[in-house]
Amino acid sequence: MREIGIGIIGVGVVGSSVVKILQENANIISARIGAKLVVKKGVVRDLNKVRDVDVALTTDRDCVIQDPEIEIIIELMGGVEEAYEVAKEVLQKNKSLVTANKAMLAYHRYELEQIAKNNPIGFEASVCGGIPIIKALKDGLGANHILSLRGILNGTSNYILTQMSSQKISFKDALKSAQELGYAEADPSLDIHGQDAGHKLLILASLAYGIDVKPEEIIIEGITQIDEDDIAFAKEFDFVIKPLGIAKKIHNEIELRVHPVLIDKNKMIAKVDGVMNAISVIGDCVGETLYYGAGAGGDATASAVISDLIEIGRGKNSAMLGFEREHFSFKIRDKREITSRYYLRLSTFDRAGVLSKVAGILSQNDISIEVFLQKQAKENIARLCIITHVSLEANIIHALEEIDKQEFIVDRSFFIRIEDFQ
Amino acid sequence: MREIGIGIIGVGVVGSSVVKILQENANIISARIGAKLVVKKGVVRDLNKVRDVDVALTTDRDCVIQDPEIEIIIELMGGVEEAYEVAKEVLQKNKSLVTANKAMLAYHRYELEQIAKNNPIGFEASVCGGIPIIKALKDGLGANHILSLRGILNGTSNYILTQMSSQKISFKDALKSAQELGYAEADPSLDIHGQDAGHKLLILASLAYGIDVKPEEIIIEGITQIDEDDIAFAKEFDFVIKPLGIAKKIHNEIELRVHPVLIDKNKMIAKVDGVMNAISVIGDCVGETLYYGAGAGGDATASAVISDLIEIGRGKNSAMLGFEREHFSFKIRDKREITSRYYLRLSTFDRAGVLSKVAGILSQNDISIEVFLQKQAKENIARLCIITHVSLEANIIHALEEIDKQEFIVDRSFFIRIEDFQ
Repeated sequence: MREIGIGIIGVGVVGSSVVKILQENANIISARIGAKLVVKKGVVRDLNKVRDVDVALTTDRDCVIQDPEIEIIIELMGGVEEAYEVAKEVLQKNKSLVTANKAMLAYHRYELEQIAKNNPIGFEASVCGGIPIIKALKDGLGANHILSLRGILNGTSNYILTQMSSQKISFKDALKSAQELGYAEADPSLDIHGQDAGHKLLILASLAYGIDVKPEEIIIEGITQIDEDDIAFAKEFDFVIKPLGIAKKIHNEIELRVHPVLIDKNKMIAKVDGVMNAISVIGDCVGETLYYGAGAGGDATASAVISDLIEIGRGKNSAMLGFEREHFSFKIRDKREITSRYYLRLSTFDRAGVLSKVAGILSQNDISIEVFLQKQAKENIARLCIITHVSLEANIIHALEEIDKQEFIVDRSFFIRIEDFQ
Repeated sequence: MREIGIGIIGVGVVGSSVVKILQENANIISARIGAKLVVKKGVVRDLNKVRDVDVALTTDRDCVIQDPEIEIIIELMGGVEEAYEVAKEVLQKNKSLVTANKAMLAYHRYELEQIAKNNPIGFEASVCGGIPIIKALKDGLGANHILSLRGILNGTSNYILTQMSSQKISFKDALKSAQELGYAEADPSLDIHGQDAGHKLLILASLAYGIDVKPEEIIIEGITQIDEDDIAFAKEFDFVIKPLGIAKKIHNEIELRVHPVLIDKNKMIAKVDGVMNAISVIGDCVGETLYYGAGAGGDATASAVISDLIEIGRGKNSAMLGFEREHFSFKIRDKREITSRYYLRLSTFDRAGVLSKVAGILSQNDISIEVFLQKQAKENIARLCIITHVSLEANIIHALEEIDKQEFIVDRSFFIRIEDFQ
């Protein structure tokens, strides 16, 4: 049986899983591709670190990239610019590249596609771990205009919001629980502020729309401001709060954003709890399809890495992002044109005239109210929770700025977008 | 841009959708493959039938198969043997084949793979319409031993059971509602007796395990015997009843069966209602992933047909079933070795001694009881609902045979397997 030589740059949790699974499942993997995948060498920074991995290790990255017996390099080193340099070297050496590096792809995916030409690049592991969503978008749904795509792309955020809702605990306590269980890192900022999901959303948007956008160009908001009152309000009105990455086609423009949303609790994606990930995709022919699974973890991510090795081993050979942009192009939509229903949360002193003033400002900004709920927060302080009808986001922002200037406002006002499926 | 000529044999609902989508979405599809897919001819039985489809039609199948301008033939004629003959002719002419014909594949998939050699065969549309589950199993999850696979593979059955549960109506009334809405055909037997799901399960099992089995060799049971009491009992104990196709790896053997199950209502697949389909797959590396979407309908099925055209257009070229069986083989598991928890439903005359006799027979057959519920069905008639601990199916069947011989039994006893996820 033909042997395909593989090198791994960065042998951490995922890299070790890749080595282990290629050994333990060698028989079934060979049956699936008719070739043997053999990891020849792994590159690490520190040879003295104890690792439970059965492969020759070196610190000499070049010797692995140059090795004529190695056909495919798996980049698992993380970071952006250094990883990009490595990826370029691999492709320039006419080897195939497999990467799980979403941050690097969020910035450099189109340059890589250009350099790769006909060298395969696999990146299934870069979005939602073991869920084969890259292949679904690139191949499985290719007949469709993707009308919208909504993903729970970050397990840590989903776990925190699920805990806040099911255990009735604060954001802080839910984060602590996530850290204790290893679902959140000591520095959880990439997860809870939305960047991690943003990187993944941009990769998915490239497959769906061939659109070249950097993280700085889209709305990326985290979940840190959500409090118990928001969760309780959502429950009362049959919503759940979920951290979503959203891509939507509106005529010839694409809306891209990452933020928490209120969503009808009966939607399939609303039922995805804990650390699990899921992506709902609506295509113009196929309707809604949804993909669910573990978005992180060594073995799940390794499963995706190896799926790319299998495709490359079978000789599949198509453009990296599978979308020839010269034939078709979308523009990114202006953030100020977003429309949605909104949930607004205001803290005010409990006194006469507040409601009429708030209602007046909303009305002047063309915002009409669908649901209104006022409750006592503390002595003398009221909490106003409002659901608006569909409004222009620019108007919402303007209205809240005006409201926050009023002397009866205690805390800065806060909004969460409501995600209504078409 | 390169043009790829396509012929369609059988231009009904799906064929018409394929023609329409290839025209309406030509721009995005070309962007995705860098080639133009052009339907040259469609073959129909009756040219006089009115069709709203924009393609040259003929009744001469041979002239389409022989046409040198046609590279890919889409077989949508249905049936088993005649379709198989057509498929063989197409492959012998060195053309690529795309088929949505699950019945034909359930019987002839391995012969086709043999004949095809390096000609691509696409069959994404044969299982669960628009859900790209074939590609997920063949490519996306290739690193994994598939520990189990559980699918709601038939939308009609799922719709009927969902209606029985949500509307509290009988099987007969739910079937009538399905027929009125076009979810069930005038003759619904392939759907409600499980054959349709059985054909799909065998195709999935080939991808997961490389196993060659015919429908007659596996357990295929329908949903026609489920009644309102079963549904009510399930609800009371936090189950739902779902029609599942199940494939499980137990050591080196594969269990394959299609039947309704009771399943924990909190499992993701238990939340899939109405006509929707979903497949939960547990891999040894990736854990559980789930794929959800519309399992039928012209446009959704056409979406899958075109995804195969796209893969073929991009030059993907791997063995049809993606599993070289000479390197690895599984055996099918003996039906008598199935173990499960069981729900039993007995109708008895309401008299002293019945319970002790039933309990005695169960105990003699090594079956222990987890839950027992007795209620009055009609005057003098009792309904006994029992959940057993894990038991051997052969023992359950034997015990029910013995019970049904007792003079206090009113109707034949009935069981539903309980599907516990590992």
